[in-house]
Amino acid sequence: MRTDPQQAHGSRIDPFVDRYAARARGMVASEIRALFAVAARPEIVSLAGGSPNVSALPLDVVGDLAGRLIADHGSVALQYCPAHGDPGLREKICEVMALEGVHAHPDDVVVTVGSQQALDLITRIFADPGDIVLAEAPSYVGALGAFAAYQAQVVHVPMDDDGLIPEALDAAITRLAAAGCRPKFLYTVPNFHNPAGVTLAAARRRQILDICAAASLLVVEDNPYGLLGFEGEPLRALRADDPEGVIYLGSFSKTFASGVRVGWALAPPAVRDKLVLAAESAVLCQSSLAQLLVRDYLCTQPWREQVKIFRELYMQRRDAMLGALQALMPSGCEWTRPAGGFYVWLRLPDGLDSKAMLPRAVSSRVAYVPGTGFYADGQGARHIRLSYCLPEPARIREGIRRLAGVIEAEVELRDTFGSGGKPGTAGVDTPGPEIG
Amino acid sequence: MRTDPQQAHGSRIDPFVDRYAARARGMVASEIRALFAVAARPEIVSLAGGSPNVSALPLDVVGDLAGRLIADHGSVALQYCPAHGDPGLREKICEVMALEGVHAHPDDVVVTVGSQQALDLITRIFADPGDIVLAEAPSYVGALGAFAAYQAQVVHVPMDDDGLIPEALDAAITRLAAAGCRPKFLYTVPNFHNPAGVTLAAARRRQILDICAAASLLVVEDNPYGLLGFEGEPLRALRADDPEGVIYLGSFSKTFASGVRVGWALAPPAVRDKLVLAAESAVLCQSSLAQLLVRDYLCTQPWREQVKIFRELYMQRRDAMLGALQALMPSGCEWTRPAGGFYVWLRLPDGLDSKAMLPRAVSSRVAYVPGTGFYADGQGARHIRLSYCLPEPARIREGIRRLAGVIEAEVELRDTFGSGGKPGTAGVDTPGPEIG
Repeated sequence: MRTDPQQAHGSRIDPFVDRYAARARGMVASEIRALFAVAARPEIVSLAGGSPNVSALPLDVVGDLAGRLIADHGSVALQYCPAHGDPGLREKICEVMALEGVHAHPDDVVVTVGSQQALDLITRIFADPGDIVLAEAPSYVGALGAFAAYQAQVVHVPMDDDGLIPEALDAAITRLAAAGCRPKFLYTVPNFHNPAGVTLAAARRRQILDICAAASLLVVEDNPYGLLGFEGEPLRALRADDPEGVIYLGSFSKTFASGVRVGWALAPPAVRDKLVLAAESAVLCQSSLAQLLVRDYLCTQPWREQVKIFRELYMQRRDAMLGALQALMPSGCEWTRPAGGFYVWLRLPDGLDSKAMLPRAVSSRVAYVPGTGFYADGQGARHIRLSYCLPEPARIREGIRRLAGVIEAEVELRDTFGSGGKPGTAGVDTPGPEIG
Repeated sequence: MRTDPQQAHGSRIDPFVDRYAARARGMVASEIRALFAVAARPEIVSLAGGSPNVSALPLDVVGDLAGRLIADHGSVALQYCPAHGDPGLREKICEVMALEGVHAHPDDVVVTVGSQQALDLITRIFADPGDIVLAEAPSYVGALGAFAAYQAQVVHVPMDDDGLIPEALDAAITRLAAAGCRPKFLYTVPNFHNPAGVTLAAARRRQILDICAAASLLVVEDNPYGLLGFEGEPLRALRADDPEGVIYLGSFSKTFASGVRVGWALAPPAVRDKLVLAAESAVLCQSSLAQLLVRDYLCTQPWREQVKIFRELYMQRRDAMLGALQALMPSGCEWTRPAGGFYVWLRLPDGLDSKAMLPRAVSSRVAYVPGTGFYADGQGARHIRLSYCLPEPARIREGIRRLAGVIEAEVELRDTFGSGGKPGTAGVDTPGPEIG
């Protein structure tokens, strides 16, 4: 029987401890990682992951595409390709972005190993150790990981129900400028935010662009969920109105399949050239097989209809989650109401700590992600991220029922014994969308 | 009609020029890149690329595997997976490495986006800017790119016909120690070296390990070609005799298909843990589809027989190249005689410059890689790398015939006009295998 690697080797002294680069010293496994291994057990309702519902794809059709691609064009599909990415795929990517008002040339698209690699490469080319990146509070955990890997420092900017607050962004830039700091870029997830579940209001988009243009601040617009809105047409991307000041990141992980690892960056030409060189150094090139499969899927299949199927599926699950939260959560809990995407951001009652509560939730057979992972500065102790993308609606309701029971028990403990003597962390209200 | 990106945008002033990280300043497109775009034209015999002969695979069989994988197991194959890599694939990887005497636990294998990503992640976790990495002279261009991306400095160690010279390694370590420098690791390609075409003699392997152990110097053993030897059994890997001091890198790019981008690192547990975290930050996870396709291929197909087919195919081409070199090259040229892999390393006659000659070679419809790319310090002007992996034997002979003509014309020019007044670069003999 194979043993868990952490158990098998985790307790050894590291003989390389004095050899690592400075950037590697912060690379330590998250303390909640072990818990997530437990949370993968089938009896547990996981509201923790962000895995899309790939089973909703026509798997036989996609399988047939892949089979024919290799059998008929294997000498290309199984071969290296330029680091820039397949030209045919880059043309289709421009068609996808056109749905959000983005008019781009395929030459300015760089195909990446999911948009996570785009985040990595952008940070690589822009951030020296100690450089400052602005990001929403809270922010996507994978982006925070990429920033940390290059020793960039994150300054969080508050959001409310309408997303990033322009005045708060302006104030942060001014405050940093007064301290002699010029941030390298603003990282933002404008649509159906991960983890906050809010969307940047249309009226604010021009304001955000104007503030960034005035400060010569590059915007990194990360938009994996843009086509997964439940109400009306896709929102206009920030990039649509500022081709020179915005790097746009897209992904097929949520609209097609996360397992192919195909994302992209659309960047001004000078940045694009650096991204191609950085990609070459990082992985030589993306998988031809993955790229050509996505290209063939987009060229031959009704992908817009498939996105609609995903949207409806996720909307049903969002409704299941919001309905259950409304019906079951004890008073003192507040949460966002996402208009798309995968996530609800929930604030626990005063005095509760989401990380301390997690083991008890897992014992009650429900898992979530504690809020602290979504901040670079230790905030988030009172928040949790709930995802509704993967479980069936009935499972979601059962998961929320279990979670409500856990929270009620915590509240009871708090009322009996107080908040555990950790007033500095537990129960501190953190910036974030105005939820409730 | 789409325009070339360099032409379309290359001449613009870069508005971000003062914003890049220090590490990005050295990221400039190679001056020979434009020439390689020309070299891809069908009338040109390219002896430049390192693309394996994937057409020799049973493409219909592989296509069928991929089709069934997605149709029957798409909910896993199209989904995210752990950054560590698929456990089933990691078990098969251990079987592959066993052919070279390596006995490893699947937990200590990290699946990467080709072994290029392993090089990137290893440099990321070990090298601070200015740190020193030891590497053969010449060395793999992709490794030099990864080291440069993290601002590591390369100190080259000479090779001869039997690979890395132990005494030279010892001397380099001693010299650096005297200067107060402790290199972070030794990077070596022991088998069928890219670009030098030589192999580390069996008798030297223990010596190299002993020297590194005495200096507490980590060894990074990059072995993409190990199973592609033309004579006898695979050589015993360095890692086979030092599990704690060697990180072993492998790849399916040459024994299966480069277009799936599946490689791996086998590392001591503490390093493995850092690599997994670094991979997560770089790309979240590898492609499930690519990993499971390789796993299914290894589990169901006679892959050892396929490797034998590749070996015979590359041996024929090696023979075609060596025969043509022997028959056609003017006196003053010398070259290595690889016992496996893809590459011959050729030294031009005195006074010739391989980079200056390249445009004339391309005009004569033959392409190669100038030697300077394989050194971090500007050496290599008199060398070229010739690859025999992709063209048919008759094309290889034709390519060498054209190249011989170009060299003859250069020699004639040299004899008439001298070596162009560049005694500092052209014609300087550089360290490298004792060829001829």
